[in-house]
Parts: sequence; C-alpha cells; structure tokens
Amino acid sequence: MRNLAILFFSLVLCACTQAGQTAHPSLLLTSEGVKQIRAHKGKLPVFDASLDKLMQDADAAVVREICLPAPKDGGGGYSHEMHKLNYYDMYNMGIAWQLSGDEKYAQKVRDILLAYVDFYPSLDFHPLGLSGNPGRIFWQTLNESVFLVHTAVAYDCVYDFLSAEDRALIEKEFFYPYTDFIMTGLPHNRANTQMFNNLNNWATWACAGVGMIGIAMGDDSLVQKALYGSDLKGEGGFLKQMDVLFSPDGYFTEGAYYLRYAIWPFVTFAQCLDVYKPDLNIFQYRDGILLKAVDALLQMAYEGEFMHFNDALEKGYSAQELISAVDIAYNANPADKSLLSVVQDYQHKVLVSDAGFAVAKGIAAGEAEPLKLHSMWLRDGGDGSEGAFCIMRPASDKLNSAVTFKATSHGLSHGHFDKLTFAYYDAGNEIVTDYGAARFLNIEAKYNGHYTHENESWAKSSIAHNTLVVDGKNMFGGKWRESQKYHPTVLWHSFEEGLQCVAAREENAYDGVSFTRYLVYASVPFLEYPLIMDILKAESAGKHQYDYPIHYNGHMISLSVPYERALTSMSTLGNSNGYQHIWTEAKAHGSEGSTSYTWLTGYRMYTVSTATTAATELFLCRGGASDPDFNLRNEPMYIIREKNAGNHVFASCLETHGKYDLQVEQSANLVHSCKGVTVLSDDENGITVQYDFIGSHSVTLTVSPSEKATVNYN
Amino acid sequence: MRNLAILFFSLVLCACTQAGQTAHPSLLLTSEGVKQIRAHKGKLPVFDASLDKLMQDADAAVVREICLPAPKDGGGGYSHEMHKLNYYDMYNMGIAWQLSGDEKYAQKVRDILLAYVDFYPSLDFHPLGLSGNPGRIFWQTLNESVFLVHTAVAYDCVYDFLSAEDRALIEKEFFYPYTDFIMTGLPHNRANTQMFNNLNNWATWACAGVGMIGIAMGDDSLVQKALYGSDLKGEGGFLKQMDVLFSPDGYFTEGAYYLRYAIWPFVTFAQCLDVYKPDLNIFQYRDGILLKAVDALLQMAYEGEFMHFNDALEKGYSAQELISAVDIAYNANPADKSLLSVVQDYQHKVLVSDAGFAVAKGIAAGEAEPLKLHSMWLRDGGDGSEGAFCIMRPASDKLNSAVTFKATSHGLSHGHFDKLTFAYYDAGNEIVTDYGAARFLNIEAKYNGHYTHENESWAKSSIAHNTLVVDGKNMFGGKWRESQKYHPTVLWHSFEEGLQCVAAREENAYDGVSFTRYLVYASVPFLEYPLIMDILKAESAGKHQYDYPIHYNGHMISLSVPYERALTSMSTLGNSNGYQHIWTEAKAHGSEGSTSYTWLTGYRMYTVSTATTAATELFLCRGGASDPDFNLRNEPMYIIREKNAGNHVFASCLETHGKYDLQVEQSANLVHSCKGVTVLSDDENGITVQYDFIGSHSVTLTVSPSEKATVNYN
Repeated sequence: MRNLAILFFSLVLCACTQAGQTAHPSLLLTSEGVKQIRAHKGKLPVFDASLDKLMQDADAAVVREICLPAPKDGGGGYSHEMHKLNYYDMYNMGIAWQLSGDEKYAQKVRDILLAYVDFYPSLDFHPLGLSGNPGRIFWQTLNESVFLVHTAVAYDCVYDFLSAEDRALIEKEFFYPYTDFIMTGLPHNRANTQMFNNLNNWATWACAGVGMIGIAMGDDSLVQKALYGSDLKGEGGFLKQMDVLFSPDGYFTEGAYYLRYAIWPFVTFAQCLDVYKPDLNIFQYRDGILLKAVDALLQMAYEGEFMHFNDALEKGYSAQELISAVDIAYNANPADKSLLSVVQDYQHKVLVSDAGFAVAKGIAAGEAEPLKLHSMWLRDGGDGSEGAFCIMRPASDKLNSAVTFKATSHGLSHGHFDKLTFAYYDAGNEIVTDYGAARFLNIEAKYNGHYTHENESWAKSSIAHNTLVVDGKNMFGGKWRESQKYHPTVLWHSFEEGLQCVAAREENAYDGVSFTRYLVYASVPFLEYPLIMDILKAESAGKHQYDYPIHYNGHMISLSVPYERALTSMSTLGNSNGYQHIWTEAKAHGSEGSTSYTWLTGYRMYTVSTATTAATELFLCRGGASDPDFNLRNEPMYIIREKNAGNHVFASCLETHGKYDLQVEQSANLVHSCKGVTVLSDDENGITVQYDFIGSHSVTLTVSPSEKATVNYN
Repeated sequence: MRNLAILFFSLVLCACTQAGQTAHPSLLLTSEGVKQIRAHKGKLPVFDASLDKLMQDADAAVVREICLPAPKDGGGGYSHEMHKLNYYDMYNMGIAWQLSGDEKYAQKVRDILLAYVDFYPSLDFHPLGLSGNPGRIFWQTLNESVFLVHTAVAYDCVYDFLSAEDRALIEKEFFYPYTDFIMTGLPHNRANTQMFNNLNNWATWACAGVGMIGIAMGDDSLVQKALYGSDLKGEGGFLKQMDVLFSPDGYFTEGAYYLRYAIWPFVTFAQCLDVYKPDLNIFQYRDGILLKAVDALLQMAYEGEFMHFNDALEKGYSAQELISAVDIAYNANPADKSLLSVVQDYQHKVLVSDAGFAVAKGIAAGEAEPLKLHSMWLRDGGDGSEGAFCIMRPASDKLNSAVTFKATSHGLSHGHFDKLTFAYYDAGNEIVTDYGAARFLNIEAKYNGHYTHENESWAKSSIAHNTLVVDGKNMFGGKWRESQKYHPTVLWHSFEEGLQCVAAREENAYDGVSFTRYLVYASVPFLEYPLIMDILKAESAGKHQYDYPIHYNGHMISLSVPYERALTSMSTLGNSNGYQHIWTEAKAHGSEGSTSYTWLTGYRMYTVSTATTAATELFLCRGGASDPDFNLRNEPMYIIREKNAGNHVFASCLETHGKYDLQVEQSANLVHSCKGVTVLSDDENGITVQYDFIGSHSVTLTVSPSEKATVNYN
C-alpha cells in the first residue's frame, strides 16, 4: 500500500514537471496557487480588488455576443479591437473559472475557441498591408503573438474542463495552424520564419506565445523551439534573446519605453518556465538578467513615468506590462521589498495569478519598502561594450531631480539620431525635454494609430534633441542601419556626492566632425539647487555650422539680449532634416561674453547661460510646422548657432532657481545668478570654463577626455 | 465686596466690547482663544502643523536682519517683496509671541515697527508711477492696505508688551500718518480720498486695514470711518460695500478669481468686528451675505480650481485667501460641516487663529462632510437684476463635469467682452476654455508682474471667448465703461435632472445685431455622456460677418472636411480686435449639411458638430501672434464663420465620447456619433434643431425665448 502511494505521488509530481505531460493549470496559475488564493479570499485588499475587477470583466464577457469580425482595421479600428477583446475575454474567463469554479466561464471560453476553429484556418494575410510581417487576424504578426500568449493562459485554465474531442479539434484546427503561422507564415509568404528566429521583441512575443501554448497542450517540442529557435540550434529563441537583448546591466537597446513592452513576454514566459522547467533556473539565467532588467526599467523613470527617449509615449509604472513585471519579479525574488511599494504607490493592482498573490500577501504583511532611485550607469550592448545610458540623481531625497545623458548605440528601428543628448527633470516636471515618439497609439484617425510620418521627419531628427547638429543635418545621414554600426566612446563617469559627472565622445555621427560632451551635476555651495554644467566641444578640420538646441517645457521669461520677433507672419527655420518642422518665433545675436535664457516651469525658473559672441545666432522656436495632419505637439526650443566654426566649445550652465508660489503670491530669487560664462582655456590639458555668479562667486570647471571633472568654488 | 466684584467684571466686559477700549489680543486671536489653543497643543493635527509652520517662519523672522529698502520695484521686485516679507514677519511673530510667550518675538515686532517709524513719514509717492493710486512703500495703494491689515494683527498681538511710550511713538509717527495716507493721500495728491470711499475691493482692503488698526489702537473713530466711509454718511465704507459688491446670491461682479481676493479683507475684518462689535451681527448682515459669498466661491470651481473667466489666473481652494475665508466662515457658522472637507481635502492647513482652531477641532472630531457641488444660478448686480452666471453640473457624482454660461454684467475693469460665453469642464480637464488673464503675477521680467498689454488686446477681446463675434469687432467697441452700462437679459433656466438648460439674450453688445443663446445639457439615452446642445441665433436687419469660436484644450484629431494647412509659413487671421493674436493654422469650407471637429483631451474625445453650408468658412487657429514679449500662451481654437448673414442660427452639439487608455492600450468609441445637425425651423414659435446620430437615433430640440427647452429622443 505504502509503495503504491509513493508510486502514485511520483507520477503526480512527474506530471507537473516533465515535458509532454502538463498539469493544469500551470502557466500563470498553478493548482497550489488556486488553492491558496481561494483560501485567502477577502483577506488581501489589493488582490481582492484585482480579482473583483477580473470577475466583473469575466461577467461582462460571459454575456457578450461572440463576434469574430473579418480582419480589416489597424490598431484602434473595430476588427482589431474586437479580436483584442476576445483574447482578454478568454483570459479573464479562464482565470474566473479556476477561481470560482463556475462552469459558465469555462463554457464560454470553449465557445469562443470553437468559433476561432471555424474562423481561423481560412484566413489569408490581413488585408491592410501596412506591415512587413502581416498577421492574419491582426495587421501585424506582433499582435498575433500577443493574442496567443493570452489565449494560452485561457486554454491552460479550461484544459481539464474541455472534452478530449474538443481539445483535439481546437488544437488541430486552431492552435497548430496558429503556431505554424507564427513560426513560418503562409505558403506564399514565409517571412515569419525569420521573424520567429530573430533577436528582438517581436520574436520574444512569438516565442512566448508558442512556448506557452506548447506547455498548455503538453507539446514539449513547441517549448523547445520557443527556447532554442525553430531549428533548435540556439541561434534564435528565448534564451538567446535573453543573452543578447539586454546589456549586462539590464539595459534594453531600444530604451525604457520598449523595455517596458519587451519585458512583458520575457517575465510572462519565464514565470511559466519556472514552473514547467524549474531546473532551467530561468530567473537566475545570465546572473539574473530579467530581474536586473526590471530594476533598470524602474530606475529609468521620473515620478513613475518612463523617461522619454527614443520612440517613447507617456507610460509608466502603472502600464499593464509593469504589473506583470513587478509581480513576477517579486515572486521570483521576494527579498526585494521595494517592488511592493511600486504596487502600493503606483499600480494599486496585481495580476490575478500566483505572482500577484505573493505581492498582495507581502503588502498586507506591511513588508513594502521605499523604492530607492539613484544615479545609474547602464551599459548598452549584449556585452556592455556599446556605450551607456546615464542617470544622475541628487543624493538628497529632498531634491526631486534627474539628469540623463544618452551615449548608447542607436537602439534599432526605434532609436533616434540623438547621440550624447541630455535631459533634465525637476520638481515633478520634465524641464529639458525629449519629444519621444510622434504617434497617437490606437487612434485610428491618426494614421491608423501607427507611428506618423513626422516620427521619421521630426521626432527622430537630430535637431529634435538636445545635442549637436552639424550643418543642419541628421546624424549618420538619418540612416539608422548606418548609425547602428557605431556607438559613442564613453570616457568616464563618477557619481560622487555633490559632484557627479559623465563624458563621452562621438566620432562617427558626422563626416569630418567629432564631438565630446562633458556633463556635470554639482552641488554649488552658494546656489539653492544643484547646477548642471555642460561643455560640448565640436572638432573639425573644416568649417561648419553648429547648432546647440535646448528643448524645454515651460514659458519663455527672458532672453538677455534684444530679439526680433515674428509678429504677423512666421516661417520655418529650414526645409529638411527636421528643420522644416520648426517655426522661427524670434531671432537674436549673442552678447559678447555670455547670453542667458530663462523660462518658467511650474513654480521654478530655469536659466541656460552660454558663452557667446556677437556672431553667435540665437533662435527662439516652436515645433509644429510642415505638419499637414496636425500630428505634432507645438513645443518650444532655444537654439544657439555658431557658423563657420571648426573647433568650437559650447560652454553652458543650467541653473534652477527661484520660487514662484501663486497660491500665496510669494516669489523669490526669480532672476538667475549666473552673470558670465568664459572658456578660460582649451588645449591638450583639457578645457577650463569659468562660471561667474552674483556676489562675486564663481565656479571653475576643468574637464579632459582622460580625467574626471574637477571644480573649484569661489 | 460682591458689588465691587460685579463692578469690576462689568468694567472688564466693557473693555472687551466698548468702542475706544480694546482688550488685547482681539483681532484674529482673542485671549480666550489663546488659552484654548495653548491647552490643545499637540492634540489637533491640522492646527499643530499650521502652528509649527508659523513658528518656523517666526523663528526665521527673529534672526532676519531688519531691512527696509527704499521703494523702487513693482510686484516681484526686491523692495516690494522685502516690505511684504516684513509684514508677514511681524504677523507671524506677533502670533508666535501670543502662543509661545517668548519675548524675542514681541521684541522683534517692536524693532520693525520702530524702524518703520523712522522710515515711513519721509516717504513720498512710490517712484514707479504705474498706478493711478500709488502707495508710498508699494507701487499701488492696494498693497499699502494689505500691509496694514497684517500689521494691525501684529500690533494687536504685541500691544500689551509694548511700553506706553513705544505705543505713543509708533501710533503717532507711523500708524496715524499711514491711515491718513490711506484715507486721503498726500497733500499734493488726494486721490486716496476717493479710493477709500469707493465701492470696490481696493476700498475693502483700505477699510479693513484702517478699521483693524483702529480696533488695535482703541480708536473707534477709525472703525467708524471704516464702517461708514470717511464722512461717516454710509455712502462708502465696509457696510455699503457689503450692500453693493455682492449680488443677493453672493456673486461678486468681478468674478470668482476676484471674489477670492475680495473675500479676504471682508471675512478678516468681519471676524474682528464680530468680536469688537458683536451687536453688529456682521455675519448675519444682509441675510448672511458673506457666508453666501464664500459658498458661491466654492461652487465656482472645478476640481478645487476657480473657473477661469474674467481676469483669472490659476488659483483655487488652496489659495491663502481661501484659508481665511473657509476658516472664518466655519467659525461663524459651524453648522456647515462641508467647509471642513475643503480644509481636509485641499488646504491641509488652517489660520493660526480662533477660527482656524475651531476648524481643526471639527476635523479632529471627524465632523467633515463632503462638499456638494451642484447646478447653480448666481445673479449679478447688487439687487440681482444684472444678468447671471450659471453652472450646470450632472446629477450623478460619477460624472465629473461642469458647463458654465456667462450672462453677467461686465465686471468692472477686470471684466472681458464675453457676453453669453460658455465653458466646459470634464474628467478633470478644462475642455472648452476661457483664456483668463494675460499676466505673470510677481514675475518682474514680465511687465513687472502687472497685467500685460496682451491682457487688453487678447485676453479681454471677444474673439478670445466662446461667443459670437460680429464683423471681427469687440463687443461694445472694446470699451468696458460702455459695456458696464448694460447686461444681458436672462430668459429662463432650469436644472431638471437629465435636462438642464439656460437662455439669455444680448442686445447691446453690437450695433444693429442682437443675439440669443440657448445652452442645453442633456442626458441622452443612447449616448455614453451627457450632450451639450448650443443654439446661438444672431439677428440683424443688415449683413454681417459672424464668427463662432470654440477655444479648446487638447490635440486636434480630425475635421470632417478637407482643409488647407499652413505648412512653411503662417500669418495672422486679422489685424485688430484680438484677431492680430491668432495664427491661422488651417482653413476649410463647411460641408453642405453639417461639419464635425474632434479633439483629444486626456483620455476622452470631444466633437463639435455644427450645421454648415459650403459657404461656411472654418479656421483652425492658435493664439500667440503679435506678441513681442512672449506673454501669451499658444492655445488652439476652432472658428466657424458665416459671411453676409443677417439672421443666422449657429446650431451645434458638443459630444463627449470614447475612452483612450494608453496604460492598458485599450480604446473604444473614438469616433463621434453625431452624423448631422439640421435646423428644422426658425420662426415665431421658436427654433427646432434635429441632431442625428449613428444607429438611426436622433435628438430634436426646440427652444424659444418664452419657453424652456424641450427635447425628444428617437
């Protein structure tokens, strides 16, 4: 009897872990998790609220008429949104069935799956024809993969409810044709073969979908293809993606906004693999790269919103992908209690899954600890050799600021021509800005929700960034595959308290011109807020036009020199390379010495003071020209131009000052302190710049490629 | 013995209440209040926090070097801010002395007062010369009065600490010359005589200052002048101001933003009078007009921010004036527990005074009740006969919306040429906007913090408002004194659940053209959100150009007709009456039938659909042209133009629709439902407009001057 029992338990254990024989559920929920969740019902507020919401959605789904419209629209359109709704419905009802035991949910999942059995096999490619990898239900294969990830969870949940006949039918007529399509395409277009074995986020979604339905169907061969590529050689597939898509610091080459999206299939499939193949130790793989990536993502945010470089839209910690990322990361590493505060302070919900349950238990036990944001040096490239993204933050929690410096590789097709650009966040606002992407996601009236044409012509252009623009051209001729071949050289960085600095050099972006940027973030004894000092040196044997733009968020307050304002008519600053999108609001010439420009953002003033001469040209501008479809935002910028220059040093400082409190009508320190910026020397020993301030104070900054910045305060 | 005791107590009581003999303190604090506050220290969180802040400020003031710079600057400038700091310092230290008993505070108040004794008497008028009523310390007498209100509180607090000699000196050399200046001026300019006896908020501040220092000094004759005007005839003074400056509904003719400012001296002096002359029953005066005004002010806000009509800047419940208004109103009428929630939800602080103490006690006792915002009809004019300001709000708390309709009198010098304008607030955003004032309060670089020139040329202009503009002109020729002579005729209003409506007619704004506007806010059975229907009928025997502008906050999504876009150059829509400030971004012609324009604000779409013909001209525009000093914000507008029209009906609806959730990448209902707007009839029986919607639905609306709106839904 005892031996029999042991044999029995061995078999059961075996079913849970051995390839080809899956216990259900075993993707985001496990049977043990379901038991625990049911037992704790009503005891964990954040989980209860999330479950309530899921049950409401499942209840709405149960009574919804099943509708599988013929594929027609892009993102935001009816057919697109309806099929999206279908996968969310199945997902919600699958989980609702597991947690409530009410068969109506499972029954409806079955009905929808059978509807897809009738619907799917006859579909050709999607008719929209806007994607190089079109889907069948959706306009691009990417959405096809996302559908599969969600539907795999639903199928896993209702697997035991379905009859063997139903399962056979659904798998043969729907899931196998579906995975086949994702892995190869259709007979007349096999483009998906390459897509599936690629090393980018489309492929991660594809592998996650195929792997998860493989686990759910008990077909380990699909899981193997998902892990090692369709030829099983390991040159593609999920593990290779983990090897190359993240830098050793967890940076993702497309940037924070796309890391947010990329992380979703990574953590989701990893969570499933952790149950299905625990010996893979997926969360320890490559020194815990997925957990590092989640941490990097949380660090690349300001007030919970991801920093806006590359093709970024406004998203942050509350994005649905981050719910998965934070919950699953915590489940994998419950020692990181700061993840609980992200849920508590920003997300207010959890996955209705084993991982979300673990988070809710931690929060209910009062274990949340504050998320510590700190200066960070995130190397780019699979081996960390392709430049870096740098975040400098003040040591004091009282200063809510961040300075970023971008010296990364291009970032594939979502990258911008923005080498050595910087940005500044302060007091809850974006101060020196990055446009991010030109896109109205899901709004059909705006180019079907796709990136608009102005994303190429404006958002990616060099002049749309806070960096050097030579001869009014885009870096690398505006060719991203060319840019992708190179990366800046990082010289040094240091995050000492009170004096943080970083430097990098770019030698490939412009023919015949190289430039080096030194960015220093310093606590100055006689200033209220830390000072940003920027030395950007362009070097060339020839003569060029150098533009140094500052894109800012705020209202113009003053320019220290007279200017000529466009009053009753206005024209563009140029006609190509992004300049065609710039309205010239005013023109001026610099002072002999230095020129200061002040704007107001929120309750503070910001002043850029720059070493200039009378030959320096200045432009106050606003975006939004050459925009036939009103796709652009009309944002202001300040451009400093040096003409006929060979070597030139742009020496500036950005001062944060003043208090403008409208509620109590009090103001102080509204005039900037910087009275002069002088390049004292520029030779083989480096560059020395003196910044003079009222009260006979000064800061002397010396930088060179070989040694970190030194400053003297007087 | 017993008789003697009674006699003694009678004398003491007498000292508290009888003119000429004041107990100290007796303005914002009383000795009984001080006792109570000291006894409750550490027990009332919101009071303790406010007291801590005051003590910090007082501690900073004690060690600050006394500095009385020669008068030189306007608002925001050094001399202005320094003297402002001095009165806040004295105020804080006076109260700190009362509540701590630490003599250092009283001593420092004395020192500053004595410094003003040396400083003040020799001052001539302020040198800036920008005000018709210049002060001596400040550029305008208004600030001089505000100084006195605060300093009176400080003097009251330290009165008993000072020696009789100090008091005699301070009163003779400082306060009497000061009150004399405020009541008359200087020998070579007696303009203040009229200012003091005027019936506007400058005079209220002046009377409050003079009355409060009168109470503090025990000089009842000053209090009499403050109450009844300097000739004591009652044609000027505080009581007359209460009679005429508020309508019977508590509306203040200059609007919410200035009511906020005006209410401060009213409640402050009233609080003092309530202690000094309890038999005046000041808070019951004129049927409790001050409490009505506080309520009207709280109602004229959206999400705690005052609605932006007339010369409004961004202020709301957290403005310092509202701290006084809410605390003192609650102290006068502790039955209104909703005032506690304003403190709890928005202000988080209280006056360090008897009134603030009462509020803190109420909050600590858990007595706060939610503030109920509701539809409201606020009559304008001292007797309520000069038009009205109307707010329509949905009955359901779930809909966070407000529609306003402005049919008031001009609003004195802070009024705009905006007869029958409307505005719309929804989902936390201003949707159909009012520019408010063009001013950078306290920012010296922006015209010394004064209203900028563009306040006259743009912000006040008719085209800057959501109302009819005839022949490209301002109403009343842009002359506010002319406008002030008239007011619109209100026809009717009704706030029935599901169908709220209001109508008014304007016959004087334009020569030879009258116009009537019917605004309906209706819950439509087949629409997700209530629909705003607008019928604006212009009538004239001659031919005119009629412009119907919609100023909105958001991003252009679509126009239902093709348009010609300004791409590489752009010019203004006109050259005067505000049109010189408008950049013409695109032009179009209407559809034969109706035209729809959609924009996105936050997570929702808003579509204006209007009955048009092919002759209708449409303009998509942006403000900010002809703005030499960058004083204007660049905000978008949509203008519908009918040319050569005599009688014309602008029939529109504004539909709120859709959900655009970037965080979960879900969208729904992004395309508007309204498919047509048709004027079915326009005759002696009224106007009937049919609005057609998808799904063969329609709304038929009939309005006339004599009967409220009726609607039919199909």
